[in-house]
Amino acid sequence: MSSERLIYLPLGGAGEIGMNTYVYGYGRPGKERLIVVDLGVAFPDMDSSPGVDLILPDITWLKERRDRIEAIFITHAHEDHVGAVAHTYQDLEAPIFARTFTANIARRKMGEHGHPEDAVQTVGPWPHQQGAGPFQVGFLPISHSIPESSAMVIDTPQGRVIHSGDFKIDLTPGVGEPFDPALWEDVCKDGVKALVCDSTNVFSTHPGRSEASVGPEIEKLVSSASGMVVATTFASNVARVKTLAEAGERAGRSIVLLGRAMKRMVEASAETGVMTDFPGTIPPEEARNIPRENLMLLVTGSQGERRAASAQLARGKYQGIEMKEGDLFLFSSKTIPGNERGVIRIINQFSEMGVDVVDDSSGLYHVSGHANRPDLETLHDIVKPQVLIPMHGEHRHLREHVKVADAKGMKGVLAVNGMMIDLSGNKPKVAEWVETGRTYLDGSVQVGALDGVVRDRIRMALNGHVTVTVIVDEEDEPLGDPWVDMMGLPEIGTSNAPLMDVLEEDLSQWLGRANAKTLRDDDAMHNGLKKVVRQSAQNEIGKKPEVTVVVSRLS
Amino acid sequence: MSSERLIYLPLGGAGEIGMNTYVYGYGRPGKERLIVVDLGVAFPDMDSSPGVDLILPDITWLKERRDRIEAIFITHAHEDHVGAVAHTYQDLEAPIFARTFTANIARRKMGEHGHPEDAVQTVGPWPHQQGAGPFQVGFLPISHSIPESSAMVIDTPQGRVIHSGDFKIDLTPGVGEPFDPALWEDVCKDGVKALVCDSTNVFSTHPGRSEASVGPEIEKLVSSASGMVVATTFASNVARVKTLAEAGERAGRSIVLLGRAMKRMVEASAETGVMTDFPGTIPPEEARNIPRENLMLLVTGSQGERRAASAQLARGKYQGIEMKEGDLFLFSSKTIPGNERGVIRIINQFSEMGVDVVDDSSGLYHVSGHANRPDLETLHDIVKPQVLIPMHGEHRHLREHVKVADAKGMKGVLAVNGMMIDLSGNKPKVAEWVETGRTYLDGSVQVGALDGVVRDRIRMALNGHVTVTVIVDEEDEPLGDPWVDMMGLPEIGTSNAPLMDVLEEDLSQWLGRANAKTLRDDDAMHNGLKKVVRQSAQNEIGKKPEVTVVVSRLS
Repeated sequence: MSSERLIYLPLGGAGEIGMNTYVYGYGRPGKERLIVVDLGVAFPDMDSSPGVDLILPDITWLKERRDRIEAIFITHAHEDHVGAVAHTYQDLEAPIFARTFTANIARRKMGEHGHPEDAVQTVGPWPHQQGAGPFQVGFLPISHSIPESSAMVIDTPQGRVIHSGDFKIDLTPGVGEPFDPALWEDVCKDGVKALVCDSTNVFSTHPGRSEASVGPEIEKLVSSASGMVVATTFASNVARVKTLAEAGERAGRSIVLLGRAMKRMVEASAETGVMTDFPGTIPPEEARNIPRENLMLLVTGSQGERRAASAQLARGKYQGIEMKEGDLFLFSSKTIPGNERGVIRIINQFSEMGVDVVDDSSGLYHVSGHANRPDLETLHDIVKPQVLIPMHGEHRHLREHVKVADAKGMKGVLAVNGMMIDLSGNKPKVAEWVETGRTYLDGSVQVGALDGVVRDRIRMALNGHVTVTVIVDEEDEPLGDPWVDMMGLPEIGTSNAPLMDVLEEDLSQWLGRANAKTLRDDDAMHNGLKKVVRQSAQNEIGKKPEVTVVVSRLS
Repeated sequence: MSSERLIYLPLGGAGEIGMNTYVYGYGRPGKERLIVVDLGVAFPDMDSSPGVDLILPDITWLKERRDRIEAIFITHAHEDHVGAVAHTYQDLEAPIFARTFTANIARRKMGEHGHPEDAVQTVGPWPHQQGAGPFQVGFLPISHSIPESSAMVIDTPQGRVIHSGDFKIDLTPGVGEPFDPALWEDVCKDGVKALVCDSTNVFSTHPGRSEASVGPEIEKLVSSASGMVVATTFASNVARVKTLAEAGERAGRSIVLLGRAMKRMVEASAETGVMTDFPGTIPPEEARNIPRENLMLLVTGSQGERRAASAQLARGKYQGIEMKEGDLFLFSSKTIPGNERGVIRIINQFSEMGVDVVDDSSGLYHVSGHANRPDLETLHDIVKPQVLIPMHGEHRHLREHVKVADAKGMKGVLAVNGMMIDLSGNKPKVAEWVETGRTYLDGSVQVGALDGVVRDRIRMALNGHVTVTVIVDEEDEPLGDPWVDMMGLPEIGTSNAPLMDVLEEDLSQWLGRANAKTLRDDDAMHNGLKKVVRQSAQNEIGKKPEVTVVVSRLS
């Protein structure tokens, strides 16, 4: 047996929904030539990552092996697959390959970050194959909720691996290529070593519905509306955006696109030719002169994002347009778990305006972009891999998908982020554990999720903050009284005295009792003063704040 | 027409799910005698109320009219109806009336806060009526997911008002009284002026299911499990807790109750006689000696609460008990919108342990405690009120419920918190707008939601915090260099220098250029130094932190 091996290593996306980043390698252990499939982001939330702008995969392992990276392949243009391309470019500097539409989006990102746009190379779909060291990689079209989504056909000296990317089985996707069973059967006919497979909807037991099924329902709804109609969906779901626009056009409405992503995606689809015949649109300025029953707005913000068009309309005017009683707002989208609060906030704001809101609870106006369990099984049955490795899922999804695989006689392998799997030979095994994690884009700086920066912010959010200032003179004696500044704490405690006064009094007493040795010792001073504040606050307000102690020595 | 009027004023619960607090009054305007129905809490979240322990209604309006409050009536023992009773007792000091089980729970709360338990008086169900100034109030049994839930029959000189409380139409609720249509018809036969009605499930268009329907499914699931079974539900849903325990007992399992609320609720149900024949339980210590296939735990934490038993089991051991591969965890509950992240976290932790998790997605193991739209209409049809006032709902629920009422020829009135409705005469009208809001229990202190305390904490969570210390000598000259302490900010900025050094350097330069007038002026110093920090940080890390400036003057 060869001493070379074929490895699979997820750095993001296996054990979470988001920041998909998968590595394949071939060569002698520790010398493998590498390719990366997808470089995505995840989104922060107030619970675990307040103030953070984006979550990137920790790519330390890749950086340290930069000279071994042959290429980066992007399956499709969703943020959780392409979003980190520009943020990681300087660290990896490998050529990036994608199909036309995806490449268009990736190049825009590179441009915005001042990186060379030609680092992104456009490649055609299967049967074209792109060489990358020991690999030959093809983009095999597969249907999803964005144009030109592709599975990666990764040919290696040890056989063919198929990385599904995100997908559903859709024979009538509206925009983009329908799933083509014959083509897939042909690609898989000589045997597939491993299928690395989307797991998002493994718990959905009914067969998925086609994108085409929502058109008639949306048309019925829009044509029966009497006021202005505003609809939101993921901007990148250009098939849906087109369906919505066409429904508006047929109802005699002028179409307005609101929100940066909405305009960008429609533009990119037109530029790359993946979408033709999109209805004409008018700019928001013109909309003001058109009767509202002749208007339809397509807006960003299906997840209730505070700064998106939908949330701004819910709070008042956006670009001169205002919603009114009798208007209709349609969520042609599903709320991603965790975003419920933001979405519900908007719905209630619209309710206060007298706007009727239609969401996805009826199931009529949205279909998922991911394969449900029966459709996953359809793909399994076509590909017939020796090994099935679930990806794109939380642990519960991966585990369930392994069960499905095992029940069908495939060998299922549960590989989470950082678990390097050796696919050589007939029995996949864990080759190594790689340290992985999350990197936060925080303002303009990248910080490690475990660096403590965000942890400290969470602590201040929970406990408030107190600054204690003490001046110590040349003889190591306190000069005047200690001084307290508070942020995020109540002014009055249970003793009914101002909290600040109580803290300052307790600090003064402690300082008065402190001996010369303590007064000379910065650590002792910090710890002592901090302890007094926390204990005193606990008594007064039932809370131990975060404390910054500043001891200024005149000596 | 009399110069006396009948008023309805929601102070909490109308325009939100939570902190139900409704006021009724009768008398001359401004002199009405008042009763309060329910005094509930809402729960904080990291997005809008980090660090807060509980959210209470703002009862300022009631406090200012304390001498006019005749009584407080509690419909049932859920936290969003009874949770604020002890926290507001000192401000209101009115007698509290409740039925046996609710009174038991309320008294425990009073005791925990050192208030007299006999402030809570037990009253029997309808036809008993409790006098309260101009009102006669009866507790009319209605089915819900907790024992002895009751509607309030409020007889006033201007007619009968029915306040539904939380309810569903359940003829077989397991524990507690079945809904009794004949009794309700009798109570309503002489005409009802207004029905103030639960709106929670107005968007659910299918008829609700009885509590009795989950029993057989739970029994099937538990009897087929091979490892330990752990189930969670709201502890106060004692019918469900009993169903779960009985399923365990029938499967030959010993029952263990874990979590304070679980034990308290089972105890209260037994003490008050609302539940009989609860299977025997064993303490957690004994459980360790019993084979896991003979154990069933009933635990708190159905909403993923971090400190509850379920979350602790998901992280590791709890009271010496540990879950293992092959065990089963059952959520016999629905995730309340906003709690998804916490619940999903637990499910994935269990998945990592190899524990199978069954949630409510099948609809088999949980039924709602609230009336769906058809059941709301059943109650409307029995009560036949002149006016329907939706409550217990967000704005969207209230608005939809008004639409349902109007479609049936009742007069629907949309009244949100603070909207005082005059129910006198034939046409209800808005009498007054009362300022309402939320009060945060923050540690041991109550602070107003708009006091800025929590806003400052959120800002620190988003932006981090910087302390700047400057010492100014007797001649108003800076003594030494300014000093920076940071919390929740990255150490290194885009210039690759330590952020602290950059800030201190920029502050020094500013101080060096500051003129004598600025140096003498505390406000100018604060504003100037703060501005430097924010601008400098914006350049370095793309973020403007919160800043505390301490200028210590030796003069």
